[in-house]
Amino acid sequence: MSYFDAASSAPLHPVARQALQASLDEGWADPARLYREGRRARLLLDAAREAAADAVGCRPDELVFTPSGTRAVHSGVAGVLAGRRRVGRHLVVSAVEHSSVLHAAAALEAEGGSVTEVGVDRAGAVSAAAFAAALRADTALACLQSANHEVGTVQPVAEAAEACRAAGVPLLVDAAQSLAWGRVEGDWSLLTGSAHKWGGPAGVGLLVVRKGVRFAAQGPADERESGRAAGFENIPAVVAAAASLRAVRAEAAAEDARLRELTERIRARVPGLVPDVEVVGDPARRLPHVVTFSCLYVDGETLLHELDRAGFSVSSGSSCTSSTLTPSHVLRAMGVLSEGNVRVSLPFGTAEGDVERFLEVLPGTVAAVRERLGATAVTAPAPEGEASLVVDALGKRCPIPVIELAKVIGDVPVGGTVTVLSDDEAARLDIPAWCEMRGQEYVGEEPAERGSAYVVRRLS
Amino acid sequence: MSYFDAASSAPLHPVARQALQASLDEGWADPARLYREGRRARLLLDAAREAAADAVGCRPDELVFTPSGTRAVHSGVAGVLAGRRRVGRHLVVSAVEHSSVLHAAAALEAEGGSVTEVGVDRAGAVSAAAFAAALRADTALACLQSANHEVGTVQPVAEAAEACRAAGVPLLVDAAQSLAWGRVEGDWSLLTGSAHKWGGPAGVGLLVVRKGVRFAAQGPADERESGRAAGFENIPAVVAAAASLRAVRAEAAAEDARLRELTERIRARVPGLVPDVEVVGDPARRLPHVVTFSCLYVDGETLLHELDRAGFSVSSGSSCTSSTLTPSHVLRAMGVLSEGNVRVSLPFGTAEGDVERFLEVLPGTVAAVRERLGATAVTAPAPEGEASLVVDALGKRCPIPVIELAKVIGDVPVGGTVTVLSDDEAARLDIPAWCEMRGQEYVGEEPAERGSAYVVRRLS
Repeated sequence: MSYFDAASSAPLHPVARQALQASLDEGWADPARLYREGRRARLLLDAAREAAADAVGCRPDELVFTPSGTRAVHSGVAGVLAGRRRVGRHLVVSAVEHSSVLHAAAALEAEGGSVTEVGVDRAGAVSAAAFAAALRADTALACLQSANHEVGTVQPVAEAAEACRAAGVPLLVDAAQSLAWGRVEGDWSLLTGSAHKWGGPAGVGLLVVRKGVRFAAQGPADERESGRAAGFENIPAVVAAAASLRAVRAEAAAEDARLRELTERIRARVPGLVPDVEVVGDPARRLPHVVTFSCLYVDGETLLHELDRAGFSVSSGSSCTSSTLTPSHVLRAMGVLSEGNVRVSLPFGTAEGDVERFLEVLPGTVAAVRERLGATAVTAPAPEGEASLVVDALGKRCPIPVIELAKVIGDVPVGGTVTVLSDDEAARLDIPAWCEMRGQEYVGEEPAERGSAYVVRRLS
Repeated sequence: MSYFDAASSAPLHPVARQALQASLDEGWADPARLYREGRRARLLLDAAREAAADAVGCRPDELVFTPSGTRAVHSGVAGVLAGRRRVGRHLVVSAVEHSSVLHAAAALEAEGGSVTEVGVDRAGAVSAAAFAAALRADTALACLQSANHEVGTVQPVAEAAEACRAAGVPLLVDAAQSLAWGRVEGDWSLLTGSAHKWGGPAGVGLLVVRKGVRFAAQGPADERESGRAAGFENIPAVVAAAASLRAVRAEAAAEDARLRELTERIRARVPGLVPDVEVVGDPARRLPHVVTFSCLYVDGETLLHELDRAGFSVSSGSSCTSSTLTPSHVLRAMGVLSEGNVRVSLPFGTAEGDVERFLEVLPGTVAAVRERLGATAVTAPAPEGEASLVVDALGKRCPIPVIELAKVIGDVPVGGTVTVLSDDEAARLDIPAWCEMRGQEYVGEEPAERGSAYVVRRLS
């Protein structure tokens, strides 16, 4: 089995396991107690906080441990919004933040605040200038991830932080995906992370709030973790988290180079191995271990299932793999193809041979899925026919509308149009993406009785 | 070392350790993913939920795992208050709930809701009738612990639940202290627990919400744990929590009998071994492993320190051991002596010899602390003198005001009074308690220029 989904959760690092086991004996007591077991627990907690703060690049008293990265984000956002309520109730986020940030933003909107989502380019990157332009006099907080979790694109955090400083707005950086690789540069104000992303145990997030940031912890009072993370401290897990962060950092430079080369192979070779593929995300400013691509005429769920059968665990932003049947908000914001989407994120230590094997297996797997969907005939030449055609794909889910389109495009003459009727959310993203990939013209979308009518003109 | 503070946190049960270690290899992946590692994680999570639900006595889909017992309480209270907002914003709690419940109540008050605290008797027990009488037409929720965490008194949960059902008010039971010993009887609506109290790992609480309870999870949305506990699931810890709950339940009947006998020895023998001691909490309706007593003329912090040096880890509700310098709210609500307070809570498996050794060590330890505080001469006979005396104990902390009182009571004739001036919060509790213990009359408290004037009449 090759586990290629480190961006979801990394396998436990051996150092994390050792630290966890060792501290199970020492770290179970209440660190607020003054007796021996309590003092021992307190020492472990303090040492873990110092190690984590050193890895992050902050003071120990600026860092608290939370039960998860999600809780760190929720608490960080809520604390600043409350602490700066007098400034205003406006929040700036990028359109490609992790759902924990976007859900916190939605909670603010539900309470009457306002949110500006800053868009991204086709590579998934925010422009620092656009981010700066979104800041207003009533902006309480801005949030920008250090790097995107679905496509690996690195964001211009240092520049955004500078703009935020100039505007007097604190910047919260969700560093969940990058903390294994190094400190987040720049003059940010808050930072969040999640241990299970770097090979630490589940159950540990971290929230850093720089001195001087107005912060009012929300929810019922609790004396633990400076009042910023309620509940009994999970010391063995915290110790393991800090120890493994230090351990992965020691390996980071070498692994960065090695995994970057392996993901570069995938980036470079997949378009040659698999027809009709779009590799997405920034080719240069990216995380070393993440590569994402989408395959036309393939449904993501089946592709993931077949890859799992072949021994590869990957994830997908395709609509059919989400509970909401909408494509990933990241792919949508980028405006890239979402069908047949695959994210490969390599854990530390991934063997070269596993990546090579993946590249061997992938073409046949994609071809088999396409064949099963009847999408193999789509590139066949076709006679000239009606000047315009309508394809009724109502009630059909991704990738069927695109397959139906591809099947009939040859039936209209060059200059003719195909109108696809679809009520599938993914079509809005994937029909224009198909046009771009296949060199056809996307004319536009019109409302229809059910769903939308997507009009495509044949150019070649 | 004898660790006698299981009510704070229990040492990890061997079964918890085994389950944790075994599931570190199987349970680190995202249970929402469909690949092999994700499916394995999901199976572990589902099995843990079933085991925990069986131990609690609920349906698996009524139970979610939270990051701590505190978070379970906070989420449970907030969810019902929001779900039943139309009914009203009134909350009923007992005066001796865990701080997580009282802090949630304070948060409601800060938002404009109202709270009724139901008092307890001198043993720490709520009267079911008084609890029922506190329910109003606008009561959204009532909270009652299954057993008190400081004195071990068991509350009449089943009767309270019946009264709540009759009034159409959901009852939330904080079962943190009792879940190791058995299910909570009665027709309660919500229940919370904390794994590290039963020998499970830190980082796991549980929140049960019976079907039919109006519940609206608060905070930003999150798809994990039925939307009721945000953040990546901590599966190895959850597995360990469920396994250890099952394991302690298998031992519970035998340990209940054994530990009850050991705590009964402490209850029965301490008053004979140590002069001027008040054993608190209900002698019969109580947790098997908890016994609490208070010693006159002793400061709790020094006593805990000396017991720690002698190899015993216990906790205290004395004011000098809290960050706020106020006695435990539980002892205050009971109206019992708070100075020199010691809570002994025995972990599963406590050896009889350790308890015997504690009983050997305690008298000398208390005597030494009293001697150091100059409290040894307090029982000496004294000549008759002034009909009334004023003792200025302003600026002096517990137990000094009571020691000063005890030193001069013999200096006034029978029928004469001693007035103690004190600005220490503990005096309000401890001077009346001293009077009761020493057979003197507590006349009352008057406001003074600084602090209060406590008037005591000599009766013997």
